Amino acid sequence: MTSVRDCLIAPSILSANFARLGEEVDNVLASGADIVHFDVMDNHYVPNLTIGPMVCKALRQHGVTAPIDVHLMVKPVDRMISDFIEAGASYITFHPEASEHIDRSLQLIRDSGCKAGLVFNPATPLSYLDYVMDKVDMVLLMSVNPGFGGQSFIPGTLDKLRDARARIDASGRAIRLEVDGGVKADNIAEIAAAGADTFVAGSAIFNAHQQSDPHGYDSVIRQLREAIAST
Amino acid sequence: MTSVRDCLIAPSILSANFARLGEEVDNVLASGADIVHFDVMDNHYVPNLTIGPMVCKALRQHGVTAPIDVHLMVKPVDRMISDFIEAGASYITFHPEASEHIDRSLQLIRDSGCKAGLVFNPATPLSYLDYVMDKVDMVLLMSVNPGFGGQSFIPGTLDKLRDARARIDASGRAIRLEVDGGVKADNIAEIAAAGADTFVAGSAIFNAHQQSDPHGYDSVIRQLREAIAST
Amino acid sequence: MTSVRDCLIAPSILSANFARLGEEVDNVLASGADIVHFDVMDNHYVPNLTIGPMVCKALRQHGVTAPIDVHLMVKPVDRMISDFIEAGASYITFHPEASEHIDRSLQLIRDSGCKAGLVFNPATPLSYLDYVMDKVDMVLLMSVNPGFGGQSFIPGTLDKLRDARARIDASGRAIRLEVDGGVKADNIAEIAAAGADTFVAGSAIFNAHQQSDPHGYDSVIRQLREAIAST
Amino acid sequence: MTSVRDCLIAPSILSANFARLGEEVDNVLASGADIVHFDVMDNHYVPNLTIGPMVCKALRQHGVTAPIDVHLMVKPVDRMISDFIEAGASYITFHPEASEHIDRSLQLIRDSGCKAGLVFNPATPLSYLDYVMDKVDMVLLMSVNPGFGGQSFIPGTLDKLRDARARIDASGRAIRLEVDGGVKADNIAEIAAAGADTFVAGSAIFNAHQQSDPHGYDSVIRQLREAIAST
Amino acid sequence: MTSVRDCLIAPSILSANFARLGEEVDNVLASGADIVHFDVMDNHYVPNLTIGPMVCKALRQHGVTAPIDVHLMVKPVDRMISDFIEAGASYITFHPEASEHIDRSLQLIRDSGCKAGLVFNPATPLSYLDYVMDKVDMVLLMSVNPGFGGQSFIPGTLDKLRDARARIDASGRAIRLEVDGGVKADNIAEIAAAGADTFVAGSAIFNAHQQSDPHGYDSVIRQLREAIAST
Amino acid sequence: MTSVRDCLIAPSILSANFARLGEEVDNVLASGADIVHFDVMDNHYVPNLTIGPMVCKALRQHGVTAPIDVHLMVKPVDRMISDFIEAGASYITFHPEASEHIDRSLQLIRDSGCKAGLVFNPATPLSYLDYVMDKVDMVLLMSVNPGFGGQSFIPGTLDKLRDARARIDASGRAIRLEVDGGVKADNIAEIAAAGADTFVAGSAIFNAHQQSDPHGYDSVIRQLREAIAST
Repeated sequence: MTSVRDCLIAPSILSANFARLGEEVDNVLASGADIVHFDVMDNHYVPNLTIGPMVCKALRQHGVTAPIDVHLMVKPVDRMISDFIEAGASYITFHPEASEHIDRSLQLIRDSGCKAGLVFNPATPLSYLDYVMDKVDMVLLMSVNPGFGGQSFIPGTLDKLRDARARIDASGRAIRLEVDGGVKADNIAEIAAAGADTFVAGSAIFNAHQQSDPHGYDSVIRQLREAIAST
Repeated sequence: MTSVRDCLIAPSILSANFARLGEEVDNVLASGADIVHFDVMDNHYVPNLTIGPMVCKALRQHGVTAPIDVHLMVKPVDRMISDFIEAGASYITFHPEASEHIDRSLQLIRDSGCKAGLVFNPATPLSYLDYVMDKVDMVLLMSVNPGFGGQSFIPGTLDKLRDARARIDASGRAIRLEVDGGVKADNIAEIAAAGADTFVAGSAIFNAHQQSDPHGYDSVIRQLREAIAST
Repeated sequence: MTSVRDCLIAPSILSANFARLGEEVDNVLASGADIVHFDVMDNHYVPNLTIGPMVCKALRQHGVTAPIDVHLMVKPVDRMISDFIEAGASYITFHPEASEHIDRSLQLIRDSGCKAGLVFNPATPLSYLDYVMDKVDMVLLMSVNPGFGGQSFIPGTLDKLRDARARIDASGRAIRLEVDGGVKADNIAEIAAAGADTFVAGSAIFNAHQQSDPHGYDSVIRQLREAIAST
Repeated sequence: MTSVRDCLIAPSILSANFARLGEEVDNVLASGADIVHFDVMDNHYVPNLTIGPMVCKALRQHGVTAPIDVHLMVKPVDRMISDFIEAGASYITFHPEASEHIDRSLQLIRDSGCKAGLVFNPATPLSYLDYVMDKVDMVLLMSVNPGFGGQSFIPGTLDKLRDARARIDASGRAIRLEVDGGVKADNIAEIAAAGADTFVAGSAIFNAHQQSDPHGYDSVIRQLREAIAST
Repeated sequence: MTSVRDCLIAPSILSANFARLGEEVDNVLASGADIVHFDVMDNHYVPNLTIGPMVCKALRQHGVTAPIDVHLMVKPVDRMISDFIEAGASYITFHPEASEHIDRSLQLIRDSGCKAGLVFNPATPLSYLDYVMDKVDMVLLMSVNPGFGGQSFIPGTLDKLRDARARIDASGRAIRLEVDGGVKADNIAEIAAAGADTFVAGSAIFNAHQQSDPHGYDSVIRQLREAIAST
Repeated sequence: MTSVRDCLIAPSILSANFARLGEEVDNVLASGADIVHFDVMDNHYVPNLTIGPMVCKALRQHGVTAPIDVHLMVKPVDRMISDFIEAGASYITFHPEASEHIDRSLQLIRDSGCKAGLVFNPATPLSYLDYVMDKVDMVLLMSVNPGFGGQSFIPGTLDKLRDARARIDASGRAIRLEVDGGVKADNIAEIAAAGADTFVAGSAIFNAHQQSDPHGYDSVIRQLREAIAST
């Protein structure tokens, strides 16, 4: 449905080394990653607290020009949306349960020139998309429960990806279908086959790295792309 | 009351460069800073979200051995306390308004071997100390309102420092009296004279830096120490 | 589907002059408005605080006998429902996201003799109606995001009106389909054509007024009715 | 669809005598009840506070070996889930609105060896089941609003039971379909006919009791079973 | 301590006729009232919802030039503070329990040119004043519990007024000491004697009114002043 | 200060056998206990959920006539207060941090004929008593952190008891001073000496029991009384 060309590899910097984040991001981009996935947790929507707008801004000031794809695991969302717009985000996605005013939050993102998206927890129905297909640039399906450690890809996500893909195709719009959680070289092919075109990978990429080598991530990213191409 | 020897300079890493945090912390410690001040905001207790336990852990893995002084601007506090204990914190301080069970939260910190403290917003009365002087290792007085930008040192903090110093001296215990907000070379002397012995400084230190120079912060830290010595 | 006869014009008193509210309501009713739309915001469900039960009661004591259509933009809803019943409301509508116990809140309204309704934010799916069609007298679709200023009619509302109309017709019940947000003389025809039969208008009516003239709103209300009739 | 054999009678101990709960439960089980229904309310998700894990544990220590079917009317749910696992629960069901991370809460229950379920308030749509049919052992439909007194069976539940039954049958999985609220001898037949196979009954059973007689509930439970058999 | 000259009578418009609020306020001011007391309730901090910024703005647009003394019974306070500044408030007071950042909220008010104050519920200790005496223009003691109906003046308020008066006098600052709740002609003398200089009265004034007479409140306001003068 | 005669032993039924609660309470009262201490937790104010009004009512219906001393570890408190009044409580105490309107909550209890009290967590300052000494019948000091298991008596409670005793004596009122947490035969003497006159004991009593013996708790209660008498 989508060619490998159109598929984006999005390393999650949660798995990077926070003591040298600029260099890590530089290297993973130099190794062929397409966009930087930025996971924001607030210890309220999810049971963890990670990184906020200042870290995003620091990456921009460091010289990162690739798209930064901010996934808000926070509730409420509107103040964080404003802060990440100002900090240089490219995509901002949030969970529909985390905003009383979903349509307005989407507009807030788009009015700034950023791309907007909704994120679906594994059990969240897709009906939240019914009346906003004209306002989303990305649909992100969680294939693990966000904010909890040590999980593997939830198989039911494949059916859900097919449902989301059908909705996107029916809309005739250019909407990215992203998947996040447990994506590895050995399952990315079937995930792509189910309709995903944007792939978040954290430990799958960063655990394989050679930090001191600017091209230390080349092989793992190439491996992911080849697996997608095989579908 | 306390000698310059006993006074600690605590650079707040909120003002450091998050793209190269390990190096920044190395340099500021090499330049003579005593402890690393680590500001955690959750977008609920304060209107901002900064950095969480993973960043603290990364500093430890990077090789930082100096005390890390974690100031929790989060509500509730107990899960963050557990996470920061595990992440290598040395001090953990929190706001009494942010825990229903202050005594228990203090014990939770101390049971882990960390040092515990309470933080007082500018208007918060010191009566929260009445029955926990035997359970705190640090009292932190905010001299600005945490989480809001662009403020300068609130003058009334000097009287409050004197009150806190009197309570600490009356207890006969070794409790640090820390101050955070708008501390600069030109007011640190009177702050020390009012009883503070631990000084958080963010922009005062990091804005004066030479990032590429391991001793780029030497002069500003020396200046702060000399000002304290002059009291 | 519905004749102009059956269509109700509901001026929102949020756009009226609160210093002389009784007179304003008298005049707009004298000019042909059918029901009084009463917007209640609590600064929690929406970022604004407007007017509560005492103002509703004052209108009744002033002599207003027309139906008062109370739209609760509050969370939670049950105490406000009780207070507005006592204050003389005719309709009480609330957002399904704002009550854990939607069926019970609807029953609470109906048991008092008031008419009950659910309100749908622009992105809220209609699935909340699946099991309560026998308990609603009104379905209100928001065509702007409630509580935020300066918005215009969201075009996607037209499709949603058609979906809601289909559900209502399938139920065979006498349920009003109301629309609120950006309704003007130049779009009311297509809104009516999409299935709405009750039209909230605020600034469209009150900004055109002659306060001192009891019939100052005649022409704008006539204009709205004529536009509806043209469909 | 299900035989009477497969139908479970689940007395709600909320209607039992809390001063002699062990004996009450012993007697109702001796009279033929299949499982013990245990209603947990926290005064937040519903306006009442009932009983918690310690009471469940006391029943196990008293010697109850029948399944205990814990219905959590609490928000949030995860800590209560852990506590009830430890207290000896057999089933744990919760409301989808009460957890941000439904899939994860279901897994938490199942990982412990308990059976997991979702509960639907009268107005809650069944779409929450879309992507978790492989993770639920029970679907519980409320036929009254939980936590409020003096209600009778909501007739619309019959249609909803048919919808839920269709989803369960389509899944091909062994999922119980439970109903709770206003179930009596004179309506249990049509409830069973609509697809329910597990029947919570509180006052219908316990109000008919002879406390001092170990078989005091025999006749009412026999009556319920006969009514089911008549469908 | 304060002369009658310095004493302010502040009618609470909660007891006025909301259908003709502009005229009511005009009349009570023409009858000698000094400032307009404006009670804002949000159905969260107190169990009622009254009136918000739009009503305040309408009074200004109607031509009211007297000070408007806004008492926020809302939580949180900062957004309402901003909205009431914009709506023309003169004084803005809030409850210390309703803001995590009291000092900052007081500064927010003062930076706008408004006067700031703290309000104390009957049981709230005065220790919240310890470190903000330089930032308050008014201290308001509640002599009933705000948001609940049908209460009379709590006698213990007299001692609390004496304590507050002592704090104010010790500060040497021009800080108003206001009292709200159950103030009547027959107790205002002892209230004034205890140190109050600003007196909120609702039903005591408005229930005695002649609405159609611009001087309908003259006698009751004169009576209050004479009672104060008698101390 | 108080004689042994005036000292009350209050077994906490949290340590009793919930499967036969009526009998347990009967036995502990027959063994000489004075009042029944009833711990209510809601899983919000404290991390546990215990028992609610229905259990209290069942004890009354079972025939318990001794005072029932309800300690609310819930937030908010007002609905639970009403429910426990109706369920037959004698004392109702709550935490000042758990009510925005402490004075009103105390009045709500007293207006019903129940006795009212405030509970202080280990770190909570006594200043909440400043303006309500005329409205409390009991002051309860927690000597452990409520809702957490496995704690022993916090030594600092002794000083706090002396402070509370001084406030009570200064008031000249008949106010009980209760202590709860880690009270045992070997420390009750010094606790009494510090000013307490009402002693909650849970495991100290119930773990020593002979359930089948109506006088199974005689010796442990006698032991507690003798220890008090020795002071």
